Amino acid sequence: MNNFILSCPSPFRQQDKIQLAHGGGGLLMHQLLEKMILPSFSNPQLAKRHDGAILQFGNSRIAFTTDSYVVHPLFFPGGDIGSLAINGTVNDLAMCGAKPVALSVALILEEGLPLATLQRVVESMRQAANQAGVLLVTGDTKVVDKGKGDGLYINTAGIGEVNHSLHIEPESVRAGDAILLSGDIGRHGMAIMSAREGLSFESPIESDCAPLHEPILALLEEKIIIHCLRDLTRGGLATNLVEIAQGARMAIHFDETAIPVREDVRSACEILGFDPLYVANEGRFIVFLPAAQTDRALDLLRHFPVGAEACKIGEVRDHPAALVTMTTRYNSSLVIDMLSGEQLPRIC
Amino acid sequence: MNNFILSCPSPFRQQDKIQLAHGGGGLLMHQLLEKMILPSFSNPQLAKRHDGAILQFGNSRIAFTTDSYVVHPLFFPGGDIGSLAINGTVNDLAMCGAKPVALSVALILEEGLPLATLQRVVESMRQAANQAGVLLVTGDTKVVDKGKGDGLYINTAGIGEVNHSLHIEPESVRAGDAILLSGDIGRHGMAIMSAREGLSFESPIESDCAPLHEPILALLEEKIIIHCLRDLTRGGLATNLVEIAQGARMAIHFDETAIPVREDVRSACEILGFDPLYVANEGRFIVFLPAAQTDRALDLLRHFPVGAEACKIGEVRDHPAALVTMTTRYNSSLVIDMLSGEQLPRIC
Repeated sequence: MNNFILSCPSPFRQQDKIQLAHGGGGLLMHQLLEKMILPSFSNPQLAKRHDGAILQFGNSRIAFTTDSYVVHPLFFPGGDIGSLAINGTVNDLAMCGAKPVALSVALILEEGLPLATLQRVVESMRQAANQAGVLLVTGDTKVVDKGKGDGLYINTAGIGEVNHSLHIEPESVRAGDAILLSGDIGRHGMAIMSAREGLSFESPIESDCAPLHEPILALLEEKIIIHCLRDLTRGGLATNLVEIAQGARMAIHFDETAIPVREDVRSACEILGFDPLYVANEGRFIVFLPAAQTDRALDLLRHFPVGAEACKIGEVRDHPAALVTMTTRYNSSLVIDMLSGEQLPRIC
Repeated sequence: MNNFILSCPSPFRQQDKIQLAHGGGGLLMHQLLEKMILPSFSNPQLAKRHDGAILQFGNSRIAFTTDSYVVHPLFFPGGDIGSLAINGTVNDLAMCGAKPVALSVALILEEGLPLATLQRVVESMRQAANQAGVLLVTGDTKVVDKGKGDGLYINTAGIGEVNHSLHIEPESVRAGDAILLSGDIGRHGMAIMSAREGLSFESPIESDCAPLHEPILALLEEKIIIHCLRDLTRGGLATNLVEIAQGARMAIHFDETAIPVREDVRSACEILGFDPLYVANEGRFIVFLPAAQTDRALDLLRHFPVGAEACKIGEVRDHPAALVTMTTRYNSSLVIDMLSGEQLPRIC
């Protein structure tokens, strides 16, 4: 097999190693995907770089997605690795405009994990699955030696039913589209960081971890033409906007003052040196749609607790292609980049 | 959340911890599933305890399955974690009688993993997916801190198309059914163990890791009535027969002398103290079917390299229910149990 390594042209040097930032959702992770994973597995589905793939079976279109969860610590204000593993995959299906139907659950347990911890996580998964209305239909359990894991890692893959004929993906974004944000940002990342750093506030910052399919299915039922959807996990709002601008080859413009950030989250960000635009969320999404549908869509979103503070944050323009700009609170204009390096390892 | 732990009746003691044997495919893993996982997630699909779930979408039936791969070492004679992660999930789909269509790939990378190692694994996955004719349509990459993983772990989930109307599951097994085995057993486990222990033979024992869907789809195309299928991974032939006997509430009887075991595998087993009946395979399966179809099925199986040595090993009887017995080479009769404790940790 060694011949293969020698003969395969590689964009990486032999001495290159995986860094934490390769999992951070930012620039290094994109380079890894662009240079190694995507060229190897190239097919039209993967090339879309969406949260999930859409597959046709008979007269049905189904969405298919996967995520592993390695969050540290396992339990944090507002959630735990179990609820995160259910909601995260439910949300990836929702971002395809799919109704989540069935999930698989694969556990990688570290030798020595207390069974009481596992039971607490399993119960949390059960509750989250019930809340989201999905069935856990198949699973797997592996155990690794002590010191080769970190308590437990979870993978969930999900299947959803696509009952619309839209193409919800960056390529469908058009100049003139409005960009709506479902609520305040930065809570999940700051909940994790506060738990890790032992910061205490008057009331703890709770993760926004929640299932998001209901408001999205409501938009689709009301025949809102959705061009693109994205939940704002690793890399936060900023990185996800850059990904979509690049995928769409369009300019994205938004207003800093339009972005809701809670006061305690803003304080925690300032203390810890984070920019809320780059902090991960687990219950927030953006939707791109024709500007004329803005008011109706906002009305619909605000019917749901997870969309109560939905607002318009920006718009799509033709030029400059593939660039994201922000009007700051001081009325200056800033070019927004992807997260570079690692901001928050093991956030999900 | 602590209230939950206190208030939830648990079959486990607070001090109980995960052991390696909880992942070994044997008795402890079954207890964990029976007592914790299945009661929490109870639904008709999970209750079947099959390799995958069957879901109906419109006029289509699809199979859905998942497995994580934590094999150590990452590379072994006859395969590596990459080919294993593709073939293992392809085979779980095949065991539902499904045509494998699409796979997800989720990587958990340890900080410090050489990119050259990752590239070698990715290339192996690409080749295995091409060979099995499946597309890798969606994926995920996570990175954990150095010392919290072991190079890399892979999860694959798979979707397959079910084009038959059979119920391929233990409950469909009937008294009088013949049990066919697709070839010699014990190679994968002994390949891994020889690599770990640094044993050298004249020629190394190679894993039997291979995709198994083609012979099974051939049986289905020829209208062979398949009652049950099972690939002989963790726990080996013996544990899988016990699982099926218990699921079917039937007696299973087989002949030790009918089981092909290669001479080098038998020697390695003797040196290392293993019983080939309990050693994991990654390219072998058993099929339960009406005895009258035995000859036609064997003819069909033997057309494929992975089924070249297919043979009949036993039969199903009414009594004693849920028990597996073996006629030994010395013509005595033995009751066969599940693997108890851990024989080979991290075999897949």
